[in-house]
Amino acid sequence: MSDKSRTPDAYARAGVDIEAGNEAVARYKGVLGAWRHPDQLDAIGGFGGVFRLPGGGDQALVASADGVGTKILIAAELQRYDGVGRDLVNHCVNDILVVNATPMFFLDYFAVGKLDPDVAAAVVQGCADACRAHNCALLGGETAEMPGLYAPGHFDLAGTIVGMVNVNDVPKPETLEPNDAIIGLPAVGLHTNGYSLARALIARDEWEQPFGATTYADALLAEHPSYYAAVRAIQKVAHVKTMSHITGGGLLENVPRTLPAGVKAIFEAARWNVPPIMTELVRRGNLKYEEKYRTMNMGIGYTLVVPFGDAQKAVAAVPGASVIGWIEARQGDEPQVVVHEARP
Amino acid sequence: MSDKSRTPDAYARAGVDIEAGNEAVARYKGVLGAWRHPDQLDAIGGFGGVFRLPGGGDQALVASADGVGTKILIAAELQRYDGVGRDLVNHCVNDILVVNATPMFFLDYFAVGKLDPDVAAAVVQGCADACRAHNCALLGGETAEMPGLYAPGHFDLAGTIVGMVNVNDVPKPETLEPNDAIIGLPAVGLHTNGYSLARALIARDEWEQPFGATTYADALLAEHPSYYAAVRAIQKVAHVKTMSHITGGGLLENVPRTLPAGVKAIFEAARWNVPPIMTELVRRGNLKYEEKYRTMNMGIGYTLVVPFGDAQKAVAAVPGASVIGWIEARQGDEPQVVVHEARP
Repeated sequence: MSDKSRTPDAYARAGVDIEAGNEAVARYKGVLGAWRHPDQLDAIGGFGGVFRLPGGGDQALVASADGVGTKILIAAELQRYDGVGRDLVNHCVNDILVVNATPMFFLDYFAVGKLDPDVAAAVVQGCADACRAHNCALLGGETAEMPGLYAPGHFDLAGTIVGMVNVNDVPKPETLEPNDAIIGLPAVGLHTNGYSLARALIARDEWEQPFGATTYADALLAEHPSYYAAVRAIQKVAHVKTMSHITGGGLLENVPRTLPAGVKAIFEAARWNVPPIMTELVRRGNLKYEEKYRTMNMGIGYTLVVPFGDAQKAVAAVPGASVIGWIEARQGDEPQVVVHEARP
Repeated sequence: MSDKSRTPDAYARAGVDIEAGNEAVARYKGVLGAWRHPDQLDAIGGFGGVFRLPGGGDQALVASADGVGTKILIAAELQRYDGVGRDLVNHCVNDILVVNATPMFFLDYFAVGKLDPDVAAAVVQGCADACRAHNCALLGGETAEMPGLYAPGHFDLAGTIVGMVNVNDVPKPETLEPNDAIIGLPAVGLHTNGYSLARALIARDEWEQPFGATTYADALLAEHPSYYAAVRAIQKVAHVKTMSHITGGGLLENVPRTLPAGVKAIFEAARWNVPPIMTELVRRGNLKYEEKYRTMNMGIGYTLVVPFGDAQKAVAAVPGASVIGWIEARQGDEPQVVVHEARP
């Protein structure tokens, strides 16, 4: 099932070194050393950092920083600027939602080689729109003109969100048990991951060609959705034990971040739809199991684990939500995530 | 005194368009429109965004996002990676210090074309060191590998800081009155601004040449200091009415951000020292008044306004601090800042 031994894999050929990324993260632990701020709490899965409010009782702040990856290069090339701001804010909202935090404010960082006020305004408009949709203040930001670092027409966009949660409401992955159901919320496309691979497999001159009912560009730039409203709707009718936002690393790396060691997550791929753009990338790159489920979300943008008895109520609460798998006991060093693929 | 009419000026020749930057900021106001989160408070001068804590009484969060500008290109070229993290954190600390906020946590965004875990660890180590020096948690961050956006060896670094302040302790610029003294804290170099100009005036092959007792590289990479301890020391002995962090825009643009319309700030340049690297840039670029004081800090990293009677106590509290100017009444559309230059 694993295809890890094949090197270089498609993603590496696209210029992204997942091992170097994991190595950097491991090095950061050494960098931080033994010191830790006394108000910093254990985060679950690292989706958002949690900081207890000094004098704030059970209230904690939850923060997350992110970018939009090389989706930015497709947006820049096609001069479609407004979507990336929504991509970024929604990505950040979803990350702190894993900790059950409600967004309070967001700050952006927009960096360019040559500043065009129209482009800057369009990018920040996207951030502002997505912030407002979450009653989240766009509290500030930085616009940097850096000739020599960014090529003409290129830019980067990153941001940080801060929300709040009562520490008693942070999900408790340790309560997971075999037979719990995994609810999946559908992805609309690549969201903000896998774009270096996509750009390697779909050449620039194809982007504006038809693909299905639209174009490759439309499929590639489909906006990263916010799962905030869907999660809140499910929480009204079901007990949510843990959640994961499926971004870089896919189901294989994101789901384990909020699983205790004694259980594993079993997914049945036949239970959900794969967006056509991913099917196309799998076909073009001849992507195997590890490449598919570690590079892309493969159609699942967000997962929630609920007791078996709550599963039907949960999926009934949100159009498109479905039961996509379950929790099993895990022995020894078994994989924490297994995706049973549909038979061809 | 003004040299605004000369175009293109030295900074524009270096590829940085200050007018485009100001235009972008003006456009952002339209982007945000009439909507404003009810917990968002008026910031003073926009150094940090202020957000009242829901249910937190008089406590407010203060946040600021920033980058290190094209200083990053000098650091990358010379493979000196650890300083930029300290530059960034100290810059952010100083920004929210203008609102009198105490840092709580920081998140970084580190983006590269090709990820080298050693470089990533060195950059983040700098952030971690400067955070710890301020008892500030390094709560999270994002490391992004983006082939095609960054050239080999290049990277960008940005970050967001969040601190807290009691809203009653936010400085009150409206209390300024003629005869108040302006205290200056010395800069050690360019800090994080003016590097596109510096790179245009000092060629790469000179960077490792001797300059004074060290090299151009050492002078250019001198680290952006934190003024946190100095400001807290002054606040113990003097009533601080307003403050400014002197970054991009220099004294001419940063000081007015925390001045009410009815007063102006008069500086006497003979009262402080200009770091040799800036004297050198002024000489090479034949920089005139506007270019000097709008592009570089010209030797003053941070300003505080105190009552005349507190000035001597304030400067005695911090080595290197000095009285560098005073507040006068302002008529009509007089400039808000005037720098009297020393006679040659």
